[in-house]
Amino acid sequence: MRFPSKLIEDAVNEFTKLPGIGRKTALRLVLHLLKEDVSITQEFGNAIIKMRQDIRFCEQCHNIADQELCSICEDTLRDKELICIVENIREVIAIENTEQYRGLYHILGGVISPIDGIGPDNLNIDSLMERVATGEVKEIIMALNPTMEGDTTIFYLSKKLREKGVKITTIARGVAFGGELEYVDGLTLARSIATRMPYDRYLSN
Amino acid sequence: MRFPSKLIEDAVNEFTKLPGIGRKTALRLVLHLLKEDVSITQEFGNAIIKMRQDIRFCEQCHNIADQELCSICEDTLRDKELICIVENIREVIAIENTEQYRGLYHILGGVISPIDGIGPDNLNIDSLMERVATGEVKEIIMALNPTMEGDTTIFYLSKKLREKGVKITTIARGVAFGGELEYVDGLTLARSIATRMPYDRYLSN
Repeated sequence: MRFPSKLIEDAVNEFTKLPGIGRKTALRLVLHLLKEDVSITQEFGNAIIKMRQDIRFCEQCHNIADQELCSICEDTLRDKELICIVENIREVIAIENTEQYRGLYHILGGVISPIDGIGPDNLNIDSLMERVATGEVKEIIMALNPTMEGDTTIFYLSKKLREKGVKITTIARGVAFGGELEYVDGLTLARSIATRMPYDRYLSN
Repeated sequence: MRFPSKLIEDAVNEFTKLPGIGRKTALRLVLHLLKEDVSITQEFGNAIIKMRQDIRFCEQCHNIADQELCSICEDTLRDKELICIVENIREVIAIENTEQYRGLYHILGGVISPIDGIGPDNLNIDSLMERVATGEVKEIIMALNPTMEGDTTIFYLSKKLREKGVKITTIARGVAFGGELEYVDGLTLARSIATRMPYDRYLSN
């Protein structure tokens, strides 16, 4: 696709660097910006440049932060004895939006995946061990994605953490609410029967 | 959806102002930029700000231009006796990409649409009449979208242009190449029979 202007072409090329945006979509976005006021584009461009330049990562949990500590670690009302281990910021946002969890987080920055060249040294594991070493943490919830790599990482972490005397749990896996049993994949269904729970406990939660 | 950082929230909000981008997609794009180097985001932001600030519109045909005249109007090899009237820049790019058309363009900036409050005065019609008045133009091709508004605009323009002694044509409408007759809409099919053309002429083009 050829463009009548170098400026347009540069802008389209920049948009196509984003995931899921092809040349046609990029052109649509650029022509949209052209129709709007100059100030709209300036605000857009400056907001993302500022975001990328000024963003910091929490020194404690590696979450996105505007200051030294993120808003979650700074919140004195949250339960500091509970740490939820997640892969990425995305999961923090998903869990926070449930408005049910009141503990802290620890962002690993990925999972152990030899095929992608990611080993334990590439993840935020040392800082996790330091947090546990303070003795304040009572329970660690593993909230990694239910994949082979996620399970490997949980296994690795649980071995390292067990000797510190901290309780380790994983998020419940099973049939989703609203799901129909006949459409659930076999592995999930089989595991949901194997790891069945007392109905009394289900009622009390 | 709540975000752990004001910077992230601002960036996400800016992305959602673009057409077809919701909050989840915006967050995905922002997190993608966060993973990449700071320079990537700076280049992206600056390219679109520069594009919006420096863009000019051709003084002759209203196409996007880097200078006074667009690259098409400046091209001395193009046929200046032929003007193709289009609604938007998008259509110029589509026609240019066919690499078949060697005349000039004139961008109306829309079509007559009373329901949207767009009348002839809101379109680039005066500058078209000025171009025709020079006497250089021999033929005007109407390449507007085949809608009610497009047809109204063609009718209006043809009345104004006819008295100037310029030849007026429209792009061929009919069954698309590769299309199957049974799936073509009735109006197109009926019109394609009513406006049938001599096979000899079809062969010679």
